[in-house]
Amino acid sequence: MSSEISDLDLKEAGAQLAAESARFASFGWMRGTSGNLSVVVGRDPLRLAVTASGHDKGELTPDDVVLVDADGAAVRGGKPSAEAELHARVAALTGAGAVVHVHTVASVAMGRRAPGGIAFKDVEMLKGVGQPAHDVEVTLPVIANSQDMKVLGDRLEAAREPRMPAVVVAGHGLYVWGADPRQARHHTEVVEWLLELELSSPREA
Amino acid sequence: MSSEISDLDLKEAGAQLAAESARFASFGWMRGTSGNLSVVVGRDPLRLAVTASGHDKGELTPDDVVLVDADGAAVRGGKPSAEAELHARVAALTGAGAVVHVHTVASVAMGRRAPGGIAFKDVEMLKGVGQPAHDVEVTLPVIANSQDMKVLGDRLEAAREPRMPAVVVAGHGLYVWGADPRQARHHTEVVEWLLELELSSPREA
Amino acid sequence: MSSEISDLDLKEAGAQLAAESARFASFGWMRGTSGNLSVVVGRDPLRLAVTASGHDKGELTPDDVVLVDADGAAVRGGKPSAEAELHARVAALTGAGAVVHVHTVASVAMGRRAPGGIAFKDVEMLKGVGQPAHDVEVTLPVIANSQDMKVLGDRLEAAREPRMPAVVVAGHGLYVWGADPRQARHHTEVVEWLLELELSSPREA
Amino acid sequence: MSSEISDLDLKEAGAQLAAESARFASFGWMRGTSGNLSVVVGRDPLRLAVTASGHDKGELTPDDVVLVDADGAAVRGGKPSAEAELHARVAALTGAGAVVHVHTVASVAMGRRAPGGIAFKDVEMLKGVGQPAHDVEVTLPVIANSQDMKVLGDRLEAAREPRMPAVVVAGHGLYVWGADPRQARHHTEVVEWLLELELSSPREA
Repeated sequence: MSSEISDLDLKEAGAQLAAESARFASFGWMRGTSGNLSVVVGRDPLRLAVTASGHDKGELTPDDVVLVDADGAAVRGGKPSAEAELHARVAALTGAGAVVHVHTVASVAMGRRAPGGIAFKDVEMLKGVGQPAHDVEVTLPVIANSQDMKVLGDRLEAAREPRMPAVVVAGHGLYVWGADPRQARHHTEVVEWLLELELSSPREA
Repeated sequence: MSSEISDLDLKEAGAQLAAESARFASFGWMRGTSGNLSVVVGRDPLRLAVTASGHDKGELTPDDVVLVDADGAAVRGGKPSAEAELHARVAALTGAGAVVHVHTVASVAMGRRAPGGIAFKDVEMLKGVGQPAHDVEVTLPVIANSQDMKVLGDRLEAAREPRMPAVVVAGHGLYVWGADPRQARHHTEVVEWLLELELSSPREA
Repeated sequence: MSSEISDLDLKEAGAQLAAESARFASFGWMRGTSGNLSVVVGRDPLRLAVTASGHDKGELTPDDVVLVDADGAAVRGGKPSAEAELHARVAALTGAGAVVHVHTVASVAMGRRAPGGIAFKDVEMLKGVGQPAHDVEVTLPVIANSQDMKVLGDRLEAAREPRMPAVVVAGHGLYVWGADPRQARHHTEVVEWLLELELSSPREA
Repeated sequence: MSSEISDLDLKEAGAQLAAESARFASFGWMRGTSGNLSVVVGRDPLRLAVTASGHDKGELTPDDVVLVDADGAAVRGGKPSAEAELHARVAALTGAGAVVHVHTVASVAMGRRAPGGIAFKDVEMLKGVGQPAHDVEVTLPVIANSQDMKVLGDRLEAAREPRMPAVVVAGHGLYVWGADPRQARHHTEVVEWLLELELSSPREA
């Protein structure tokens, strides 16, 4: 992927992020103006298109997008969310092509209940994040929240479970990633489903 | 803002309120004909456009709006809800440009569980009402219900927490406000999200 | 209202019932092909338009309607649900102009929890069924289920609380009525909201 | 039904499955790319149209369909899900004309709570799967999950309750069937409703 990102490329990325964003907003996972989505548009150097900050996530237009670098600093477009830095770090760390950050009630509720990490096992839905449906326990890490994206990124890097393309930020929400926006969407739906299952009916109960 | 409110101004306010209202109705927060929304259209003297009483809140038209004064009395349009008086008082008291009143199950449920006020702390979503995500406890006041809008307004004024643009009326619902209808919408979504979190998974549990 | 019901009258009633029905189906209150709606189209003799049996309630057309008499027997159109007899009895007994029968999880769950009737008090939403928001307890009757519509009607008549335009049928669902389809809709939404509140957060708990 | 399935027949089946699939996806029952639907298009030999694997179930097109035989092997179209074999076995075993496989939170939660089977009784909604609303207990079987479709099929065959057109696969989801896609849809909605009722408010509690 070339580092030359045209305005049209950025707008196309913005259109894609707006559509994904409206979808998540319709689920109630981006209340207020919470959450943000990104897609990698260049690797050398790293460039991400990130949804613009402060907008209603159900009402984004293709222009509500910012081009950021590996530090989450704006290269083009308006002011990105501070969290753009974490999106860029996730993309660099995991090789993901798209990152989803949403505020779901189930993720914060389960983060309270299981602050050391949320273990899943023997659930077919685990196949939706590339894991076996039987016998193997996979833990969704829970990390402490911070307003310092460097600190939050260090925590994510230290806690990351390579088999799970997601992390819960306690008292905050979910970060989920995938090869592209559609896979990141599907990973997000799967992780949220797993969280809703544990919330309604814990495995050990 | 001039005190001369044209019919067109009022109709535009009505269209905006109808759209916001349909949105909240789709969430199930305005069942029956419950709730009402307002937007400040003049400050000197105070004038608010308020949704007309008795209509299905998912089916309002731009004409289903009443212009009221600081006492909630109709200046133009049909008969406003008695609650228009409280909308006007919130606007005068807080300087808000828009007020949302909805009947959500979570607000009444949490008002029963925490009649002395609902404390939130260490939740990122608090930033959505302008509060810190860490260390600071912010309380959403709960006030007793009344059919006397003067009494209800006195209670709201006495209980109001300046850091929280919302109040729960016990056995009744939520009042939330913001600079304009969109910010009031976002504040409402954030407060309701916080209530749903506490309802499903109390902080102290 | 004349007893002469034209085909056009019936089709218009069918269109109205189809729209109301699609609305309730979208809430998940008419799963499978459950539930039915009716509107009174003649009083002397009593005539009701009732939704046809066996159809998906989100996919009714204006023709999916049957004209029935006071016994629920078909006067025109296809085969009505056996429950049409109960619709007609409710209309005769209460003077209602429209009857809603839906299968909601909350009504059956609360019928299990409070088989002697579900008491509501000090909830503003009670005003949505014409009751005071303060101090007065109003009970939503719960009656035992039956496949014999005469028996079920007798139970409904015996248990009916004149202040509450609704009855829960245990293990079955809700009957709700109003002056016209829109008011019956609003009464249904209000009663269901009250049931969801009690289910999530009982008053005495 | 002839064994000659034209491309047009297959595409029509695909269109029908895409519409049914989008409906279930909108309920949140097919998160990620989970679940699959089928319709029998030939009996001698057995031929089923099955939704293609790996796609978002809310975004299927009429071409996202595979024609499979009694072993679930592709006769035409792309690669079917391994689960196509189980669809074919259900169709052969029960005579069903359509099979629905969805991943609902309530089915997995109830499978945890009642691993020996989920008993329903005295619920009107049972009539939606052809059972009496009174006095008769009907059990929805729960079978252990497996990645071996032969094993899973044997378990389904052994556990099957002829009065209940559905089986819960523990830690996995629901299989439901009916004479055609619409009846299979209605059976699915009814079974899920029953599961949600028991989950929120157990009969014996």
